[in-house]
Amino acid sequence: MSFTIRFASKEDMPSVHRLITELAVFEREPDAVKISVEDLEKQGFSEKPMFQVFVAVQNDEIIGMALFYERFSTWKGKAIHLEDLIVTQSKRKLGVGKALYLRLMQYAYENDYKRVAWDVLDWNQGAIDFYEHSGATVLKEWRVVHMTEENLKNYVEKNSHEGI
Amino acid sequence: MSFTIRFASKEDMPSVHRLITELAVFEREPDAVKISVEDLEKQGFSEKPMFQVFVAVQNDEIIGMALFYERFSTWKGKAIHLEDLIVTQSKRKLGVGKALYLRLMQYAYENDYKRVAWDVLDWNQGAIDFYEHSGATVLKEWRVVHMTEENLKNYVEKNSHEGI
Repeated sequence: MSFTIRFASKEDMPSVHRLITELAVFEREPDAVKISVEDLEKQGFSEKPMFQVFVAVQNDEIIGMALFYERFSTWKGKAIHLEDLIVTQSKRKLGVGKALYLRLMQYAYENDYKRVAWDVLDWNQGAIDFYEHSGATVLKEWRVVHMTEENLKNYVEKNSHEGI
Repeated sequence: MSFTIRFASKEDMPSVHRLITELAVFEREPDAVKISVEDLEKQGFSEKPMFQVFVAVQNDEIIGMALFYERFSTWKGKAIHLEDLIVTQSKRKLGVGKALYLRLMQYAYENDYKRVAWDVLDWNQGAIDFYEHSGATVLKEWRVVHMTEENLKNYVEKNSHEGI
């Protein structure tokens, strides 16, 4: 199968949004996607872009993407976070995901990033095997913590009166 | 105990670096800190700062800090990552950590962030209890994955000749 990988442009955001939604439906959380195509266009292509995207393209159609952004490690320095690596359902198992992954790692290496980080579901053994085979390490002891927008509001409103 | 919380300035980076190193020594990884004071000054106070820091100050001395930066969730939109929340050993259990945590949450709320995320060690029950009590959720199924600088180099050099 022939495909190419390039940086996404603003015009690609409808396709990127479609992939994000496809993954959410696949994970049975279709309502979890709160951002819009316009959000992606605005937040990814402002003067201070919040993310970048590599897309895999076949016959002018976007069939996969790797969305990432910078992070900062207080031990290592500048790092990259791979937020989403998505290949559309009908194009899986053809090497698209691996090619996107390699392209991201090349980008990180060429631009002197000190670490690439991402999250994986602990039951996704196929993905874990692939990552570990590539040299990545799954950290056993660390857990991800999220404060949602609603709980953030509750916590701040409840505690801010105390004054600090 | 009386202390105040404010944004760190470039001049605070030696103190911030000291706190980072103190934590690494406490975690028995003193050699893991590869960044320097100069790195912090440069990467935190350029035109495009890679992070921001709240510091807790008592008698002109920095006794704690919360270092954070922006992330981007493809479901929720703009988010904050809390990279490090550190209180110097001699000033623990006095409410400094809680005050820094609250200040960060206030900042996130006031600036319309859709999520605050961070990582916690799964055996650090005291921290987990505090986070959960505040309304945060520890995600049981997700694992953090890291590709180190050295393994990144190996992977890219080994695979790039294939061409994609």
